[in-house]
Amino acid sequence: MTDVEAPYALSATAALGQIEAGTLSAVEWVVSCLERIREREPEIQAWANLNQRVVEDVEARARQGHGPSIPVGVKDIIDVCGMPTMMGANFHDPAPATRDGGSVAIMREAGCAIMGKTVTTELGHRHPGPTRNPRNLHHTPGGSSSGSAAAVADMMVPLCLGTQTSGSVIRPAAYCGIVGYKPTYNDFDKSGILANAPSMDTLGILARSVDDVGLLRRILLEAPAAQIMQADLSDLRFGLVRATPWDSATSEVRDLTEQFMSKLAAKGARIVTVQLDQEIQRLLELHRLISGYEFRRAIAFERTRHFDQLSAVLREGRLADGREMDSRAYQSAIGEVAALRLQLAGVFAEVDILVCPSAAGPAPATLETTGDAAFNSAWTLAGNPAVTLPLFEAKQSGLPIGCQFIAGFANDDLLLAASKGIMEAFGIG
Amino acid sequence: MTDVEAPYALSATAALGQIEAGTLSAVEWVVSCLERIREREPEIQAWANLNQRVVEDVEARARQGHGPSIPVGVKDIIDVCGMPTMMGANFHDPAPATRDGGSVAIMREAGCAIMGKTVTTELGHRHPGPTRNPRNLHHTPGGSSSGSAAAVADMMVPLCLGTQTSGSVIRPAAYCGIVGYKPTYNDFDKSGILANAPSMDTLGILARSVDDVGLLRRILLEAPAAQIMQADLSDLRFGLVRATPWDSATSEVRDLTEQFMSKLAAKGARIVTVQLDQEIQRLLELHRLISGYEFRRAIAFERTRHFDQLSAVLREGRLADGREMDSRAYQSAIGEVAALRLQLAGVFAEVDILVCPSAAGPAPATLETTGDAAFNSAWTLAGNPAVTLPLFEAKQSGLPIGCQFIAGFANDDLLLAASKGIMEAFGIG
Repeated sequence: MTDVEAPYALSATAALGQIEAGTLSAVEWVVSCLERIREREPEIQAWANLNQRVVEDVEARARQGHGPSIPVGVKDIIDVCGMPTMMGANFHDPAPATRDGGSVAIMREAGCAIMGKTVTTELGHRHPGPTRNPRNLHHTPGGSSSGSAAAVADMMVPLCLGTQTSGSVIRPAAYCGIVGYKPTYNDFDKSGILANAPSMDTLGILARSVDDVGLLRRILLEAPAAQIMQADLSDLRFGLVRATPWDSATSEVRDLTEQFMSKLAAKGARIVTVQLDQEIQRLLELHRLISGYEFRRAIAFERTRHFDQLSAVLREGRLADGREMDSRAYQSAIGEVAALRLQLAGVFAEVDILVCPSAAGPAPATLETTGDAAFNSAWTLAGNPAVTLPLFEAKQSGLPIGCQFIAGFANDDLLLAASKGIMEAFGIG
Repeated sequence: MTDVEAPYALSATAALGQIEAGTLSAVEWVVSCLERIREREPEIQAWANLNQRVVEDVEARARQGHGPSIPVGVKDIIDVCGMPTMMGANFHDPAPATRDGGSVAIMREAGCAIMGKTVTTELGHRHPGPTRNPRNLHHTPGGSSSGSAAAVADMMVPLCLGTQTSGSVIRPAAYCGIVGYKPTYNDFDKSGILANAPSMDTLGILARSVDDVGLLRRILLEAPAAQIMQADLSDLRFGLVRATPWDSATSEVRDLTEQFMSKLAAKGARIVTVQLDQEIQRLLELHRLISGYEFRRAIAFERTRHFDQLSAVLREGRLADGREMDSRAYQSAIGEVAALRLQLAGVFAEVDILVCPSAAGPAPATLETTGDAAFNSAWTLAGNPAVTLPLFEAKQSGLPIGCQFIAGFANDDLLLAASKGIMEAFGIG
């Protein structure tokens, strides 16, 4: 049973408000989240490992008069000092990491309480972990940030770190009905994170509110605390990306997205037409080639020592893709991405926010795959910031359907301000 | 005493030839290197940690009928499974790494014998480790790949991995009188390596011959074995970079470099004039800003937990630089680098190889600093491949002076072919 009045159900922003007002303590907040985890984890299986010392640490921090401790989950391909990084595989030495990844250290310094490590797919790729979708246990939560999305959606924690190389933040967030944010490439430090395809690997945030995304974003950037500005929709130009892979989306997703554009227009937003078919098709092909090439090398340890223990989808998918190019062709592909980024900068002179589905449909009714990233990969490679907002529901199943918004390179502030405006105008509940 | 006939004194290419011819065994080669290390290490202090199992491993490999094991040293900011990664600091948990960095795994798979971890400066930055310059024990070996350069120069191993964020491969190689190679940005996988400034961190090679550089390069790229082509100098256009920081070099270095250009011309090479003052000055300033910003975040664990244990040069240098920009300014600086890379591509339409000093002078007579990277940083940020060749000697001290060669982005093959031609025509001994 979900108790909507319990501290665990609060957004981080709301809980911090209650702590400020003296109606909630930092320890109560963390303990409430832990109780929620204990209650729900047997069904959801969002956690690879829980931090057994977290209450003790939060109590010590409170005693020392420090500010509140925001409960956060960390995807289990990101190093947290003192806890093993299992990376969704079962053959690594489970020795604890000896240092925090840069972003984890920054979160700790800001007082975040690391509640534990969340389940990832195998090495951050496609083979699923045990996590189920809190909205329907027979459906995938998406991947590879499966546990992070499920833990936030199920109100175990208000915020999690995830990572995206193809669609690993946006897709699980959309499938689980929460907010997912992939910032501009390299916006958050990604040291101490298992490399998949370093030219596009991006650390992102899963949350239940846009304000919470902004809260953790400012922490990760070590920027002064500040509320996200809310954009006036009538100040913005939106463009629907009806390019490949548009046709692969269900008719329900396409209809909902098109209806949404009309609703935006009705709120005064300016709708512009964008032509991006060629660029996106090329980005998708470059994504396959570059990520294959980089992934094959970055997981050379597992590939050379544990090949037989890897899943077929990894061995025959991305690892096989990785053999298609030599280093010269790889560097040429990287150069082509730089040129495409420049072209996209031109597009974003004419439009503020691009709109497209977050995924082809709601979470598939399977635990064997984590769905498809075709709507996300181009933007991960291009490096533009992207957000998924839980705007729609599938008529038949009631499962959440996300809508994806993309801004110009480094225009994260505008994207989050627009997201806040959109949630205010169209958010469910 | 150096025994120039001993296996340890051979280049890897020569030793492999002897093994092929049956006049040397793989085990003899490795044992000879180990004996050299035992004899010389008390003076040189190039090693943070030796691999105690290496002979056993090489013997097992030989028994199984596999090919020879090339002895290699690995800079101690790069993870080697089973050995601690101490990173030139003394406060980390010395637990062994649980996986190999990608490039280490690839080397192992190709049969390289990991002899041990070589000394790095503190966290790959400027504060020196204990290593001494084999050419004169009172002089710095350069940094941050101090142990890698000294171990190769002192014939303890034919090849080492180093990394470069400013000038950390080229400078120590030049100071120690060996060949240093920083490939095109991202040419070698750098997973499992302590991040300093990920937008420019580059894994490189230290060797005593250009052929050995090519040998390890092909291993790291998992490319078919092939000798480096030797370029005909008369087919190439060379340009001397007389831009900032040219004036900071000693008059001896400037004279030697200018005389070398005349000698190149005498060999039939075409000498062209290049104007790069503005580009290099801007790259150097962007290097300071971007590397500061990224470094500050990438070592957030050490910065937040061990600040008082860090050196003053780190605390007051790069960590302070890292506070100068916010994320918006950072992304704008990154965009400026992309534009400068395009501009440089235009320059390399007019010239094949740029020539400039590897450092302002020979290794300074101190063990308190590791020298200055002003001649290297611009090219590290720009991502162009660079090589230093041991072409000159200081008249008074007899210390080696390197000459640096830079090619267009991803033109590593041309750079190494030119390097081989230059060594053939001008190499000492």
